[in-house]
Order: sequence, then C-alpha cells, then structure tokens
Amino acid sequence: MAPPEAMDADADVRSASAVLAKPKDIGDADFANYFCTYGYLYHQKDMLEDQNRMTAYSDAVRLNPESFRDKVVLDVGTGSGVLAMWAAQAGAKKVYAVEATHMAVQARKIVAANGLSDVVEVIQGSMEEVVLPEKVDVIISEWMGYFLLRESMFDSVMKARDKWMKPGGAMFPSRAKMYLAAIKSNKSGMKYQELQESMNVWDQFVADTNENYGIDLSCMTGEFEEEQREHYLNTAAWSDVHPSQLMSRPITVAEFDLNKATMDDIEQLRNVDFKMKLFPQRTGAPGESRVGAFCGWFDVTFAGSPENPCENPVVLTTEPDANGATHWGQQSFHMWPEVHASDGEIISGTLDMVRRQENQRLYNVRMNWHQEDKDGVVNEQLGRRDVVWQIE
Amino acid sequence: MAPPEAMDADADVRSASAVLAKPKDIGDADFANYFCTYGYLYHQKDMLEDQNRMTAYSDAVRLNPESFRDKVVLDVGTGSGVLAMWAAQAGAKKVYAVEATHMAVQARKIVAANGLSDVVEVIQGSMEEVVLPEKVDVIISEWMGYFLLRESMFDSVMKARDKWMKPGGAMFPSRAKMYLAAIKSNKSGMKYQELQESMNVWDQFVADTNENYGIDLSCMTGEFEEEQREHYLNTAAWSDVHPSQLMSRPITVAEFDLNKATMDDIEQLRNVDFKMKLFPQRTGAPGESRVGAFCGWFDVTFAGSPENPCENPVVLTTEPDANGATHWGQQSFHMWPEVHASDGEIISGTLDMVRRQENQRLYNVRMNWHQEDKDGVVNEQLGRRDVVWQIE
Repeated sequence: MAPPEAMDADADVRSASAVLAKPKDIGDADFANYFCTYGYLYHQKDMLEDQNRMTAYSDAVRLNPESFRDKVVLDVGTGSGVLAMWAAQAGAKKVYAVEATHMAVQARKIVAANGLSDVVEVIQGSMEEVVLPEKVDVIISEWMGYFLLRESMFDSVMKARDKWMKPGGAMFPSRAKMYLAAIKSNKSGMKYQELQESMNVWDQFVADTNENYGIDLSCMTGEFEEEQREHYLNTAAWSDVHPSQLMSRPITVAEFDLNKATMDDIEQLRNVDFKMKLFPQRTGAPGESRVGAFCGWFDVTFAGSPENPCENPVVLTTEPDANGATHWGQQSFHMWPEVHASDGEIISGTLDMVRRQENQRLYNVRMNWHQEDKDGVVNEQLGRRDVVWQIE
Repeated sequence: MAPPEAMDADADVRSASAVLAKPKDIGDADFANYFCTYGYLYHQKDMLEDQNRMTAYSDAVRLNPESFRDKVVLDVGTGSGVLAMWAAQAGAKKVYAVEATHMAVQARKIVAANGLSDVVEVIQGSMEEVVLPEKVDVIISEWMGYFLLRESMFDSVMKARDKWMKPGGAMFPSRAKMYLAAIKSNKSGMKYQELQESMNVWDQFVADTNENYGIDLSCMTGEFEEEQREHYLNTAAWSDVHPSQLMSRPITVAEFDLNKATMDDIEQLRNVDFKMKLFPQRTGAPGESRVGAFCGWFDVTFAGSPENPCENPVVLTTEPDANGATHWGQQSFHMWPEVHASDGEIISGTLDMVRRQENQRLYNVRMNWHQEDKDGVVNEQLGRRDVVWQIE
C-alpha cells in the first residue's frame, strides 16, 4: 500500500507534519486538514507575491493613515506578519498579530528585523482561544478563501470582532461581495471527455482483473463512475478566466457588511434566486450561445466603519482579468452538456451554498436552473438542471 | 488566503472529506492524514493495477492452497477485499476482512457480487479495536509502505498477530527484507540546481517586497533555504531506478521474520552499519565513480510458518527493474555534492531510521558515512558526511 500523491515526484504538496508545533487549542483533524500549508514560508511567499492582494492591502493602510494612527489593531491570521507591520508603520499604537501555526515564530523574527517589536506583538494560538490584554479599534485580516467562503475563516473573524472590537471600530476589509456569471469554456467538453476515457480504462481494468485474477469488479462500475464524475465534473475548478469568456453580466450572489455581519448572514446563501441574461455571442456561429460553466468570484472593499470611514476606500477584486488572475483565481462550475441558448435568453435559477458535513470549512454549491426566452417564458422542453459541485 | 495545491488544476489529490464515515475508534488527525486516500476506488485501482503486487499475492495463495483450505483467515486492511476473496476461493473456511475506511462498504458489495459472502465477512473498524469471534490460522495483509516501513502498518499487523493468531499460524507474507545500494543519478545535480534557482527567485522576491511594500524579509533567507533544502535534497524521492544505475551490490539493512517479529525489532534500524564496495563504472570517465544517491527498497517472501510451511514460496520484490517499478518504486536518498570515488572504493557508514515525532507513521532516515580505499583505509581528507532525509 502506498499513497498515490507521493508517486508524483513533481507534486509540490508538503505534509502537515512539517509544522512543528500544533497549538493545544486546535482540533487535530482541523489542524491536519487546514493549517498545515500555512506553516511553510514557500506558501507565505505565494501569497506575498500576489500583487493585487498586496497592493490592495498596502493601499488600504497607506492611503488611510488616520484609520491606524494611535489605534489598537488586531491582525487575525497574521502569517508572516506583513499586515500587522504595515499597520505599525502607519502609526498604530499597538498591533496584536495572532497566528495559529509555527509561522508565528518566523513572524516574530521578521517583526524584530523590521524594528517593529515595540508595536507588533505576535501571539501564537487560534483566534477563538487567544486572550488579548485589551479591546481593539481596528481588525485587519486576509481571511478570504476560494469563492470567498472556502476555509470558513469568515467565522473566526466575525467571532473575533464580536469579542474584541470596541464599539465603532473598523473592519479591514469592511465589505465583501460574491458574484456569479455565465461563461463559455472549452474545459467542460474536455472534462467530460476525460471522464469518458477514465471509464474506458476502468472497463478494460475490470475485464483484465477478472481474466487474470478471477475477481469480478464490475459491480463497482457505478460507484467508480460516480467518484470520477465528482472529480471531473462536480468539483469546482480553480480558473484564470479571460473576460472575453463572460457570457452574462455578473449577478451579485451575496453581500456582507463585515462591520456587522453575523454567522447567520451566511444562511442567506441557502437560497439565492438569480437571472442571467446571455450576451450576444462574440465568436462562433451567430445566434447561439454555449454556456460551459458558471463562474464565481468575489471582491472586498476597505472603507472603514460608519464611525471611522476611510478617506480613500480601496477595492480588491478577483474578477476575470485579461492580465491574469490573483492567487484566488475564479471558481468555475463546469456543466455538461453545455447550455445551448439564443442571444438574450435568460438562465434563471437558484444557488445554495451548504457547508460540507464531514468538513465544516468546505462547501458544496448546488445550482438549479432552467432557460427562459427574452420575455421570461420558460422553455419547458429543456427542463430544469440540478447540479452539486464541491469547492475543494 | 488559499492553499497552494488546489491552484494546480491537474493535481489529483483528493480530500479526506470524501471518506464518508470515520470509524469512532480512529484518532482524527491520523484518519485525516493517513486513511483518506484509501477510501477512493481510483486509488484501490492504482494498487490493483500493480501487476507484480497482484501476481505475487495471487500466486502466494493459488500455489499454496493447502495453507488456506479449511483455514480461518484474517485480512488486515482489506481495501477492496481482493486478498480476502482469493483466500476464500482457495478454500478458506472463514475470512475476516478488516478495513478502516468507507471502502469496507464497497468491499462488502464486491464480495457479494463474487458470490463469497458466505465465507468472507467484511468488518469496518481499525484493526486495533475490532473484536473477532475466533482466533485465526492465517493472517494475510498487504501492509508495506515506501521503503517497507512508511505508514507503519507493520505495527498493526504485528499486534493483530499477537492478539488473534493461533499458535503455529502462518503470516502472509512471512518475511520482509530491506535493501540499500549506491546508485548514480543525474537527479542529484538537478535537485541542487532547482534549490539554487529557488533561492535566486527568493532573493529577487525579498528585494521586490522591500522596494514595493517596505517590508524587509531578508532575515528569513536562512529559514527559507532550510525549508527548500529539506524539500529538494533532504526528502527521499519516489524513483523508478534502472538496474544500470546500481553502483554497488545491495546491502541488507534489515530482515524481519513476520511470524515472530516484534515492534522492538524495528529498533534494530536505529544503528545499522554498512559497507558498500563500488562497482567499476560502466559509462563515463574510467577510474572514477560518482554516487548520486543511496537507493532503498524491500522484498517480502510468502513461505508460511515453520509449522505450516508453503509448498511453493513466492517472493515479491520492489528492486530496480529495467521493465519499470512497482507502485512502491524505490526510495532514492539524493546527495549533493555527489560522492566521487575510485572503482573498488568503499562507502562505509551507519543508517538510522527514526519515527518522526510529529507523525509516528512517518520516518526520517539518517546516514552518516565516509570513504575507504580497497584496503579499508579511511580517506580522512574527505571527512564524514551526515545527512537526514524524510520519507514523505
């Protein structure tokens, strides 16, 4: 027996065990599944090399010094400590930088090397358990996961705010929005083809195993196809979508005011109605559009709070960009068969985003949709489609 | 924040969460880290497609029917149930097939589809906690990990034997041996070069981060290099070594009689002396050999027990093979700089294999060596080398 991933010598997946110290207050499975990668400098570097991410956070602090001057700041999940140090450089009186992984030790060294140890205090522990010596004026955090909510660090940040923020304090970022659009994508057909090829290989494998070893595995064909379908078609894919792929205006799936959002607000994602009107097609046969995927992304805004608004609000968007994606990319929810529709037709449906039972940090996205003509008349002939994707 | 591996759309690494049910008696972290992949049919298929593995186990059962006829058999970690079904087909009276993951549910279906439910009883649970209704005559198990011991399933199988085996019962396999040889390898230089390139990129990144964002990360250069060195040079690599790469006869690192080995026997691996006499070089400049790595592998033998010996013993080897490796491959412990030595010189040293503190299923291999001439005179000028590799 041997695990498959290690057979790929090029796979750059490192093990949880490299994180030397696990804080006592974090559950074992959660630590193993979630925190492991954040203990590596090479991964911190990946995030620090995301220029859109860095510029947005840097601008949010630098262009709004009055939001930080003489303030007490909390950085939730500080990683290498960069946001905390920017806050200190902008004149914060005190910055508490909380980090669950061993990276806290490195952050402490970096803070010292940058001459900011007087202001920035790095605390190793999970945010839920850490005890701060005082309440804070500002919470800054880079907590966003794929399609905003993956990793569920939103929960920790909201809880930190309720526990540690002074009244009128400001969240950085202060607003988050999730978007969904219809896109064309040649990947849908490719993924379906990969699934077919994988099933052809399986059929040959079943025949060989029966012939060579006297074991009949054909009863697993349905289960294997289900597993492969989940992998190839029912898992959202990290994508760098080009704006020309957009086939509808994006619709807003959810919007969170982070200064007052509660965990219950995520519940609004249990039943979001949407209508996407398809653009006239830009290339290919005129008059027919082929939608290969729904595409989801998010943006966040740094605008302070009503009591302490930012002079220069900043937006960090992860929308499709001809110059390439941020490290979040977009999440593409591929569909097969593709949706064939005429220009101006409408895809109308419902989106549900549900935490996975086995791992509350992860989500399934379920979409249920049908087609309508320009006048809103439902195309009953095509029926409804109902698909669940995992966000991995 | 977003994990790096998911950014690679081609990475075929699936999450622990797909395993629907975790038996209550398995620790969370262990389950997440270890058992997750074995819950997938695609991974079972990988193992079932390893023809050397399948042929050896199949032959061990088929060619020794007297070892199974009317016997009570235990299969530890049955996976898809194949070994258990072969035992049943060979005439076993009863087979208990224990499996910790959700794959137990599939195994039960496969057993039924092959008409063997009367004989094979699939039990979902960890071997340490399962209660069998009776003791057994034979334990069959495919428990071997990279360089034999990775995954540490050896422990579970030995414990199962002590708890459930009747006196005189037979282990399948009954013997295991670990080997080590010196090999030439162009990968050593490549890995060193990758490390150098990675450090060049880091230096540029540090300069850019300082210039663009006012943060000095140069104090992390040593830590980053250590992390990268561990990744590129101090992690054993899965390899498909060609026999022509061998530069010494393999030495036996350890040998286990599985009918009576105890956990303490693994302790013999704490301090193994070895001497490898280098072959005359086959290609390149005559008179000088360049050793790029130590290469480790194992074999197991199916010979029954002294009381119940096999009529036709079978060997499953994972040695370097011109026709390609088993799914275990070999583990290569690359070294840089390479060892430059003359034909007939000796590499003499000590091997220590130590469980990793943070994850007892994993091992570090430490080797400490020097060079001797043909007469055993130590080349003091070259000194001793002392390197630790992780087996990932």
